[in-house]
Amino acid sequence: MSVSSNHQVVLKSRPVGVPQAHHFEIREADVPDLRDGEFLVRNEFLSVDPAMRGWVNAAANYSQPVQVGEVMRAFAAGRVVTSRHPDYPEGTAVMGLLGWQEFAVSDGSNIRRKIKETDLSLSLSLGVLGLNGITAYFGLTAAGEPQQGETVVVSTAAGAVGSIVGQLARLHGCRTVGITGGETKRRLCLDEFGYDAAIDYREPGLEAALREACPDGVDVYFDNTSGPISDTVLPMINRHARIVICGTASIQNWDPWPQGPRVDRLLLNKSARMMGFLAFDYEHRYEEAIAFLAPLVREGKLHFREEILDGLEAAPGSIADLYESRNLGKRLIRLI
Amino acid sequence: MSVSSNHQVVLKSRPVGVPQAHHFEIREADVPDLRDGEFLVRNEFLSVDPAMRGWVNAAANYSQPVQVGEVMRAFAAGRVVTSRHPDYPEGTAVMGLLGWQEFAVSDGSNIRRKIKETDLSLSLSLGVLGLNGITAYFGLTAAGEPQQGETVVVSTAAGAVGSIVGQLARLHGCRTVGITGGETKRRLCLDEFGYDAAIDYREPGLEAALREACPDGVDVYFDNTSGPISDTVLPMINRHARIVICGTASIQNWDPWPQGPRVDRLLLNKSARMMGFLAFDYEHRYEEAIAFLAPLVREGKLHFREEILDGLEAAPGSIADLYESRNLGKRLIRLI
Repeated sequence: MSVSSNHQVVLKSRPVGVPQAHHFEIREADVPDLRDGEFLVRNEFLSVDPAMRGWVNAAANYSQPVQVGEVMRAFAAGRVVTSRHPDYPEGTAVMGLLGWQEFAVSDGSNIRRKIKETDLSLSLSLGVLGLNGITAYFGLTAAGEPQQGETVVVSTAAGAVGSIVGQLARLHGCRTVGITGGETKRRLCLDEFGYDAAIDYREPGLEAALREACPDGVDVYFDNTSGPISDTVLPMINRHARIVICGTASIQNWDPWPQGPRVDRLLLNKSARMMGFLAFDYEHRYEEAIAFLAPLVREGKLHFREEILDGLEAAPGSIADLYESRNLGKRLIRLI
Repeated sequence: MSVSSNHQVVLKSRPVGVPQAHHFEIREADVPDLRDGEFLVRNEFLSVDPAMRGWVNAAANYSQPVQVGEVMRAFAAGRVVTSRHPDYPEGTAVMGLLGWQEFAVSDGSNIRRKIKETDLSLSLSLGVLGLNGITAYFGLTAAGEPQQGETVVVSTAAGAVGSIVGQLARLHGCRTVGITGGETKRRLCLDEFGYDAAIDYREPGLEAALREACPDGVDVYFDNTSGPISDTVLPMINRHARIVICGTASIQNWDPWPQGPRVDRLLLNKSARMMGFLAFDYEHRYEEAIAFLAPLVREGKLHFREEILDGLEAAPGSIADLYESRNLGKRLIRLI
């Protein structure tokens, strides 16, 4: 395949808080000739992730910020179209940090994995069989360590990660309680993701609803929100509870750093632990998660939702919605 | 030994915050006749611990509060003086929750351990060879998991627990940084407990001093304070840092619950964990800790300080001082 022109979404200005469409611009760029050891990937699906806010903000985070003028950092899935790399022949399906662009030149260093499940849509490798599934799998099992009969509470329970956490926790024999925003998502939690109870945090009485849904207290809290939801859950933890911090979606801005109830005494009173969880720490074990999840997907035992937007021009405005709970399922940009 | 009269320190009124002398009174009580399965302990040393504030306050804690009119809950060490229990013959040295009193009737259920190290003062079984040493040993090794070459920061670094944590961390090959109140204790940290650096948190410039003392960041933070000291340490943690919450001495009152900077994002950015640590969770492994610590004490390789007050009448006023950093070393009441 001969490719001479590429379209890319680049960061135009640095946002404070949630990135909006106007922080990006689409530019046309040449596709350079490949050197030995390189290959060209045609992206088929681009990922839209809450973590992107952290990637473009200036504050120190778990990765270096994207610079203004650079292609927006993003996971993408596609196929190798031309190759001068022996390990990535033409036709290889790959997932990696290929950026918000149509074509990406790679030397393999930004590839996360070769996609083996080519009987399924490549989009799954950005969701349930990608970092969402991997995050849910290790975040729940390795950090949360759920035991049969325990109560697992999940915030952003209908989200791309949370919905998998809830289903995996049920497979572990746990009582699962989902917290989500709005009646549509609450029904989704009950009807599609199999939660034992689901709570709309926008309704009044979150604390009472949680107490009713968790008559035996909370053993594992898988959190993607921080803020008032966590402040309500944490006083209900049981002895030896495990709190997995996977995201902080309810906090729009960390400058100035927000205050909340001190948690150290809660952890001390209950010999509990709170752990920050980053899927990258489990990079050497990704295939273990996918080998567990893929059969469940094929057998229809693991439900998931995708929300697919068409065309590169949908990308710039696609992050802000995630923070307003307007998406239902894993958000993706389809390019071809 | 025939005993007919006992003196006890009982809780007279429930304090809010730090218990003062006037919250207690000393009363004379009869020593009841022993029944089968009971034995009488003559307490030689009574312990004074920061945890006592939690034991007498009304708020839910990790143990039920002492009721007004009850003997003050306390660890004590003594010897069996009369016995109708086959496992505790006369002369047995014991440590347990025997209360702030001269004599305690026990059926064994409140005994924590039989003291084997009778070549050393029984007072040690309330400090370096008691819960202080056990807390330091498991809190550092099991919860903190120090690795050679890492930096370990200890708050209340000159205290009964902290001073042992610092010395054990050095034995693990760590750089040790102590935080303490006042120049006297700071010198003690450097000269007696072997910290690589020691900081007086009462002096201005805590943050700058910490940064200078921890050029490679903080891998383990063993905390007994909560509050502003922790707020200064936590932003300096490294990837995969372990924060061990052993106490919250700087917080005088948890009603209303105090606010502080949210820690979840710090933990997430660094894949770090914060754990509440209660020594009781390791009760089945106490002897392992003491078997490690006792030889170090005998060989003079583990330094400790005791601050011994004489007579039961010293007990009621002995807690408040702990919260004003007026004590140097493990505080004890000597009865005989």
